[in-house]
Amino acid sequence: MATVIAVDAMGGDLAPTATVEGAVRAASAVDARVVLVGPADVLRRELARYDAAHRGTIAVIDAPDVIGMHESALGAVRRKRRSSIRVAADLVHEGRAAAVFSAGHSGATVLSAHAAFGLVDGVGKSALAVTVPTLGGAAVLVDAGANLECRSEHLAQFAAMGTAYAAVALGLERPRVGLLSIGEEEGKGTELVRDAHALLRASGLNFIGNLEARELFTGRADVVVCDGFTGNVALKVGEGLVEAAVEMIREELGAAWVSQVGAFFTRRAFERFRQRVDYAEYGAGLLLGVRGLTLVGHGRSSARAVESGIAMAARLVDGRVIERVSETLHGKVP
Amino acid sequence: MATVIAVDAMGGDLAPTATVEGAVRAASAVDARVVLVGPADVLRRELARYDAAHRGTIAVIDAPDVIGMHESALGAVRRKRRSSIRVAADLVHEGRAAAVFSAGHSGATVLSAHAAFGLVDGVGKSALAVTVPTLGGAAVLVDAGANLECRSEHLAQFAAMGTAYAAVALGLERPRVGLLSIGEEEGKGTELVRDAHALLRASGLNFIGNLEARELFTGRADVVVCDGFTGNVALKVGEGLVEAAVEMIREELGAAWVSQVGAFFTRRAFERFRQRVDYAEYGAGLLLGVRGLTLVGHGRSSARAVESGIAMAARLVDGRVIERVSETLHGKVP
Repeated sequence: MATVIAVDAMGGDLAPTATVEGAVRAASAVDARVVLVGPADVLRRELARYDAAHRGTIAVIDAPDVIGMHESALGAVRRKRRSSIRVAADLVHEGRAAAVFSAGHSGATVLSAHAAFGLVDGVGKSALAVTVPTLGGAAVLVDAGANLECRSEHLAQFAAMGTAYAAVALGLERPRVGLLSIGEEEGKGTELVRDAHALLRASGLNFIGNLEARELFTGRADVVVCDGFTGNVALKVGEGLVEAAVEMIREELGAAWVSQVGAFFTRRAFERFRQRVDYAEYGAGLLLGVRGLTLVGHGRSSARAVESGIAMAARLVDGRVIERVSETLHGKVP
Repeated sequence: MATVIAVDAMGGDLAPTATVEGAVRAASAVDARVVLVGPADVLRRELARYDAAHRGTIAVIDAPDVIGMHESALGAVRRKRRSSIRVAADLVHEGRAAAVFSAGHSGATVLSAHAAFGLVDGVGKSALAVTVPTLGGAAVLVDAGANLECRSEHLAQFAAMGTAYAAVALGLERPRVGLLSIGEEEGKGTELVRDAHALLRASGLNFIGNLEARELFTGRADVVVCDGFTGNVALKVGEGLVEAAVEMIREELGAAWVSQVGAFFTRRAFERFRQRVDYAEYGAGLLLGVRGLTLVGHGRSSARAVESGIAMAARLVDGRVIERVSETLHGKVP
């Protein structure tokens, strides 16, 4: 039987249009069944825009409440018991789906996952793991913003969970773990970083030491560990710079007539570069440390990104990533 | 009389070759006199490689000790009383130079400046301000790594000092100040960020609120405030990504034969893009909060970067930036 993925159909700036289209695309491309969760009438109307080829692989589950992007996560999750994200997470808890995907309010997704699944035994905080492109391929950054403030033992747990995830997602036997800091020397960094360094040295993980932020994209580490505030800033700086760089290079290309000839030829190269660094190709982040497979999509997820997120969810179910995380946390280090 | 700039001639990966060449280039391009500080025999030998046109604008002051890039800053500055950076800073303290530039060990430069100048009245911590390119021009990021851990009142002081610097360096009447965080809403961020937000609201500065890291390069804020750990990570992620992006685009261009025709035409556009984001063009960071003009160059500073740093130092002396920082801190807000 195909894996069932629950999709918060109301999550994201482009929902429900992009989520429904993403589910329809996944239905023909991915070996998974999709349950779209949201106001049933709205979703059926969206689905009616596509031909019937998706029937049998897409179901709709009604959830009348929607959490807006600017609501307080804590208040909204408590108040709206039948929100699309909460109902979608509950489907996984009840065993009716194997994973949940949401591109909605990420704070609300994290809290809904906590409420529905609880934390894995021994884990102090959950963490969001995202893949970033590197010169050699890809690396996992953890925490990308699930928890802004944490202690050194949390960072050590992020490293163990990120190792399990990288083993599955990147197909690595013994992922190299780097600790994000401002210099490579052991003594460099904040107190948090210095304490985490000592814990990681003793962890049995494949710890390669501190990693300067400029090495995030070189591929020197497969798992890059930091607190959620730093991780979120690092990720967003990267995103903003790619947008600015594409814009600046366009301006430079436009500045000279002769360059426009070049622009014609290089347009496709640019498109491929953009794809390589585009979050849409990477699908979603994985929430580590909760006892249910939870994928957190980018708020601006397109149909293409939703499709990638569903495909990624199905692969991670196959890869038994939740079990692998538990095993790694309890000392079965890859 | 031309402004005198003291240059730590032994500072930086490419010193003293790059520092001496940078000084020689500045001698003909910048209205400033340069004092090169380091082992006199070494510096005179380097200077002998150039024709005599620089005589009269370049002097040498002997300092036998050199601080290596991997020494502990605190130990080295205490032990090596006649190190090139320490002697160069003392020249400013003694009124024999108006500013000091070093591309050497940045921790040692910060400590030497503290020792030689002391902090401006009322300032709790110094902060490194660097300019980053934006779509609209440039913005000032502060703190880029002088102090890794700080309190909210320090962030408020960084904002005031950064405002004074942006007014001089970017020629702005009333620079817009943004507080780096993980979301624009007032309630988002760490405890440090939330407390600093409240202080900045009440500061009289042109505070525009929290700024997401992806907006660092859009030009929405002229001054971007954060702690030194976060600022250093943001800056280095940017640096690393530019290097990786140039490499990735090259790979993509090389992948197709037809693209190589484009590459020929676009090479110049790339060069201009690189210049726009290259630290060498921006010269150096400014250490804010100490009572002497201190410029901190990139460790990999080329001769071109040293020349830019010297030119920048001369402009900042002309712009009375130290006095402007004091005035802004004491309530004379631009």
